[in-house]
Amino acid sequence: MSTPTPPIATIASLSHHEGRTVTLRGWLYNLRASGKLLFPIFRDGTGTIQGIVPKAAVPEEVFETLKNLTLESSVIVTGKVRADSRAPSGYELDVEGVEVIQRVPDETPFPISLKEHGVDFLMEHRHLWLRTPRQSAILRVRATIMRAAAEYFDTNGFIRTDPPILTPNACEGTSELFEMDYFDDDKAYLTQSGQLYIEATALALGKVYSFGPTFRAEKSKTRRHLTEFWMIEPEVAYAGLDDIMDLAEAFITHIVTRVLEHHRADLKVIGRDITKLEAIIAPPSSLPATPIVAPLSSFTTILPSALSSFAESGAPAGDLDSPGAPRPASGTWERSATESDGGTTEPGAPSSPAHLRAKVGGTTTKSRFPRLSYDEAHAMLEKAYAEGKIENPHKYGDDFGSPDETYISSQFDLPVMVHRYPAAIKAFYMQPDPTDPSKALCVDVLAPEGYGEIIGGSQRVDSYDLLKSRIEEHNLPLAAFQWYLDLRKYGSVPHAGFGMGIERVVAWLCGLDHVRETIPFARTLNRIYP
Amino acid sequence: MSTPTPPIATIASLSHHEGRTVTLRGWLYNLRASGKLLFPIFRDGTGTIQGIVPKAAVPEEVFETLKNLTLESSVIVTGKVRADSRAPSGYELDVEGVEVIQRVPDETPFPISLKEHGVDFLMEHRHLWLRTPRQSAILRVRATIMRAAAEYFDTNGFIRTDPPILTPNACEGTSELFEMDYFDDDKAYLTQSGQLYIEATALALGKVYSFGPTFRAEKSKTRRHLTEFWMIEPEVAYAGLDDIMDLAEAFITHIVTRVLEHHRADLKVIGRDITKLEAIIAPPSSLPATPIVAPLSSFTTILPSALSSFAESGAPAGDLDSPGAPRPASGTWERSATESDGGTTEPGAPSSPAHLRAKVGGTTTKSRFPRLSYDEAHAMLEKAYAEGKIENPHKYGDDFGSPDETYISSQFDLPVMVHRYPAAIKAFYMQPDPTDPSKALCVDVLAPEGYGEIIGGSQRVDSYDLLKSRIEEHNLPLAAFQWYLDLRKYGSVPHAGFGMGIERVVAWLCGLDHVRETIPFARTLNRIYP
Repeated sequence: MSTPTPPIATIASLSHHEGRTVTLRGWLYNLRASGKLLFPIFRDGTGTIQGIVPKAAVPEEVFETLKNLTLESSVIVTGKVRADSRAPSGYELDVEGVEVIQRVPDETPFPISLKEHGVDFLMEHRHLWLRTPRQSAILRVRATIMRAAAEYFDTNGFIRTDPPILTPNACEGTSELFEMDYFDDDKAYLTQSGQLYIEATALALGKVYSFGPTFRAEKSKTRRHLTEFWMIEPEVAYAGLDDIMDLAEAFITHIVTRVLEHHRADLKVIGRDITKLEAIIAPPSSLPATPIVAPLSSFTTILPSALSSFAESGAPAGDLDSPGAPRPASGTWERSATESDGGTTEPGAPSSPAHLRAKVGGTTTKSRFPRLSYDEAHAMLEKAYAEGKIENPHKYGDDFGSPDETYISSQFDLPVMVHRYPAAIKAFYMQPDPTDPSKALCVDVLAPEGYGEIIGGSQRVDSYDLLKSRIEEHNLPLAAFQWYLDLRKYGSVPHAGFGMGIERVVAWLCGLDHVRETIPFARTLNRIYP
Repeated sequence: MSTPTPPIATIASLSHHEGRTVTLRGWLYNLRASGKLLFPIFRDGTGTIQGIVPKAAVPEEVFETLKNLTLESSVIVTGKVRADSRAPSGYELDVEGVEVIQRVPDETPFPISLKEHGVDFLMEHRHLWLRTPRQSAILRVRATIMRAAAEYFDTNGFIRTDPPILTPNACEGTSELFEMDYFDDDKAYLTQSGQLYIEATALALGKVYSFGPTFRAEKSKTRRHLTEFWMIEPEVAYAGLDDIMDLAEAFITHIVTRVLEHHRADLKVIGRDITKLEAIIAPPSSLPATPIVAPLSSFTTILPSALSSFAESGAPAGDLDSPGAPRPASGTWERSATESDGGTTEPGAPSSPAHLRAKVGGTTTKSRFPRLSYDEAHAMLEKAYAEGKIENPHKYGDDFGSPDETYISSQFDLPVMVHRYPAAIKAFYMQPDPTDPSKALCVDVLAPEGYGEIIGGSQRVDSYDLLKSRIEEHNLPLAAFQWYLDLRKYGSVPHAGFGMGIERVVAWLCGLDHVRETIPFARTLNRIYP
């Protein structure tokens, strides 16, 4: 501390320091020795970099300190940044000095070595496993998925409203809930979805979303299930099924775009084939030369007049649709003039008159994701069974099983929207299709490559009498749902929304076999530690 | 549906439609009649607007429909937008047509009238109370506080990592926890803080934050307590107490700046005196002519070279400090070259050598918020008591009571940081002050105007042996904390962080008497419905 230390840098920012000596603060990730040369690899949370330590070029104590250093010891390293085209990051560090902050004792080495470990061992050491490059990369991608998801709604006129986690009743029946005592008299249950509550805030604020943890006490042990997982749920007043299908498409496209913008290196570490993701953001034939996410404006200098072509047309808003890429979230805090403006939607949508419904996102997309009715999807499965392409027949009226979903999604490069399932297998709050009341105005979005359902949504019942009878049919306690019924008594409007499970999307975009790697500390049937 | 409907607009966007006929979709908020003139006020979630309906100017059925319409009935209204300087929003609507979507029945009117209601009644009807202008305005401000809080960390190199909600043990002892059965054998507890878990992710990723609900099963019934509330918590590796005090100051400044940028109209509806908030973002004497939040760059066109003056200096990073306003979150997704770079901090910081510690935010601020040691704050209270300015003496060694905090904060226009409390009254994981080990390297940030503690933070114990003995002294189960101890065994580093309670900040910025209005559906000792 007697001599001034070189400026502190992060590994991710080393390109700004080429040719200069910097201080890095991090950990020893790996160490290779080759005679009088050491190749320590350092990590600092932003990335990894290889150091070069020739015995002849550094003080004896630096060489000896590093030569014997244990993995994951914390170190502050000084060295000169040198471009090297062979290095994965493009840079190497000519080490000049090292200070060990805490040396991992030789007798208790870092438990996760570079060899294979069993899953139980890794999960038991999850707090340390997180430090390995693949797990860190997954967490960085997860953070971007969460940020992009919130950004999409924030920049398209949605207000975030947080529903309660502790609820007095279940969203979809009392099947599999975590229950606890709530002070003296009451029971409380952990929420399965914020939907019912944000229906109330949507009728107050127009377009809203929630973003928080949800819980299912299911005793299922599959690679797709966690007992605690994160959901983001938009809900829109004056909107119908088609609106939220448009919204879901633009929303997913935005998230994939952001992940590809920021995480190509991370996805490479994870081993993800990104060509399948590139297909999501634009058809290969029409990939634009410039990034698909172009700024609408700079951060604070947006002028309403710059958007006049969107906003001030006297023509019906439906004319604002332009072919091509969806309009992404703009990344600006300014509301765009059109963000909350609606428009007429596709002709023929039977769910409600077009002028009742919103253009809910900032999207001006033409639909690109395939949309199949339940009946069409069933017919596809019947044909596949007849041709021996799936093992078991799909029974009309049943939900799709995992192999069914995998087959359907494998027929397309893009996420598939399956809509209008039989009402009998769907939740009580779903609006019946007026053209066939045995069907619900609902949609499931299936991710490609067999990753299954990532979004489930619906238009909600807006009739007081119908909702009341549905609650009674499902044997739900009417008193607990009185407030929910009130929403149909005082200014009911058509409204719709969906929920997207974050962990399923992380699994899909990272190409993971199991959701346990998608969240820092997974909670499953058999695990609540660490 | 036979004639084309005018373009759909939102009330917030009417300035873009002046002189044109538009369609609004919303609800009847209020209605005044004056002979042959009706003045309906409509709301659509984005704002309210007054309509003008002269009997002579509209079809008979339009006049009659509106004249008898019940409050909160849902309506689609067409009309021409006219500028009117007397109107609160600057516009009025010359109504041309109206379609009632659902009429609130005369026999069951909307229960919340414009007269006064008791708090219990309003909380029992929270799902409807949310629709009133003041409550809607509070929710919009809350959404911006949450967005700005996440934005600050997202744009300053922090990675969001979500700690578990279901935990096997308590963060600060088992005092007041919600407990539940976790499948066959286990108990689970709802988290009180994500801190312990994000200490693990900080050692993996460098700078992290968590943002989620937290729970306290306290049987206290005060205007500051909820059983379920939201916390945002940053945690930084290679950082000390001074770093997180700098971080907290820049973070709070950013949030207040965003709220004032976007919610002057909402704060007016709420009745908030904003002059006290304006003092937070800059001293009155140095308010810049241009907005304090200037864009660093446009959204995607940022060039690293544009930041060269920050990044490529060969001088110690400490020299990058520039006097004046804190550097705000830039609103861009690009990482700035300096975002994760550290620097030397103020001389004399005793907690750890300067080069061990980070400049953790994007801030280049000089400290503006007053910083008082616990001893200094105690002396201030002693003097106040001697002068008869507070009722009860403060006993040295005790925590500050609510009146103490109110007195301390009333001495300043800015949030006050009180640091280095007696270790005996603080949590087991706090690092002792090396210059006086009876004190903890911790800080509480007190909001002005008596709003009390909004942030609590500390540097964490980084010695394995000390942490182990603290856990034992506090009679905490060692086995449950083994993973937490591991963080001191494998590459321990100085690290620090804090937690900010969202609802306290909403109460402060909106000037609310009670936290129950700060969240859509408050959970308190006596309330879990709706």
